[in-house]
Amino acid sequence: MRQPVQPEHACRLVNHGPTVLVSTVHGDRRNVMAAAWSMPVEFVPPRIAVVVDKRTYSAELVRASGVLALNLPCRAQADLVTTVGNTTGRDGDKFARFGIGAFAGPLLGLPLVEGCVAWMECRVLDEPQAAERYDTLFCEVQGAWADDRVFAAGRWSFRADNADLHTLHHLGGGHYAVPAATLQATRLPG
Amino acid sequence: MRQPVQPEHACRLVNHGPTVLVSTVHGDRRNVMAAAWSMPVEFVPPRIAVVVDKRTYSAELVRASGVLALNLPCRAQADLVTTVGNTTGRDGDKFARFGIGAFAGPLLGLPLVEGCVAWMECRVLDEPQAAERYDTLFCEVQGAWADDRVFAAGRWSFRADNADLHTLHHLGGGHYAVPAATLQATRLPG
Repeated sequence: MRQPVQPEHACRLVNHGPTVLVSTVHGDRRNVMAAAWSMPVEFVPPRIAVVVDKRTYSAELVRASGVLALNLPCRAQADLVTTVGNTTGRDGDKFARFGIGAFAGPLLGLPLVEGCVAWMECRVLDEPQAAERYDTLFCEVQGAWADDRVFAAGRWSFRADNADLHTLHHLGGGHYAVPAATLQATRLPG
Repeated sequence: MRQPVQPEHACRLVNHGPTVLVSTVHGDRRNVMAAAWSMPVEFVPPRIAVVVDKRTYSAELVRASGVLALNLPCRAQADLVTTVGNTTGRDGDKFARFGIGAFAGPLLGLPLVEGCVAWMECRVLDEPQAAERYDTLFCEVQGAWADDRVFAAGRWSFRADNADLHTLHHLGGGHYAVPAATLQATRLPG
């Protein structure tokens, strides 16, 4: 069940380094791509940096619209992630081509990917130098939602009974790690 | 056994979103901190962005030296990571205080943390605006090494027989996920 995530917890969604799907829309054009490279940069307000190659169709739509969504795909969607990561929306709408379901983001109307386990609608901050030099887009999260079977009360809960909902962590070449085990650390004496 | 990592494979070390230890040195002062927020921004030359709060002792040493090391800690070091992530080097040298072994980086002489599974010596690129606004340091990897029991031929290999060497992915509050399972995706038809 999709539930809102409090703004101060939004960065937790990507704190552990999952691959994300970046979805975009401008007018009647929309797209979705995979991005292994993202990270939070600020908890409050929630801000996240994501690398989107400036030559991509996604980058073109972001420049036109000033917004993007980060969707957190899960283990059950690994083939989908690899597919949208190795094709271009310039060859035709990927949602239609690969049968990817989408629903409209409640705040910005961005196309959010069905079957993902979390979603964030973001405004892209005006940082042309980072975009030009490092393909890095600094974004501010406007709203976040998560599937409460795997993220609730501000925390991920990766368990054996929700293995299909675990996040994907790209190792390269369509090979992914999943957070199939967790542990709690304690502070050393000293 | 520690082996060199080819420059074009260096970004693979953090592609899957592990928590890193940032180690620094300037003159006779050195430090080590935990950073959950890093990401590659370019494969060749290998460049990585990492968030280091500008108010920290580590940030002070980086501003003085222009260099930092990224160390990839493993499951066996979870307590160490949480400890250096919740203490400041201004209270005294953390290596001595917590019995953390270090060896000198071959290229830049940075203190590299023993027991980690990969290491990168980096120069910090001159991007004052990203540092000021987002605490984000864009770095260029000068040299990289990895423990060949878990990273070889440009790839992580997370297996049951090397579980203690798996990377750590911070979920918040000293709770970590580890990449205990992996999978290979394939492209969808279309």
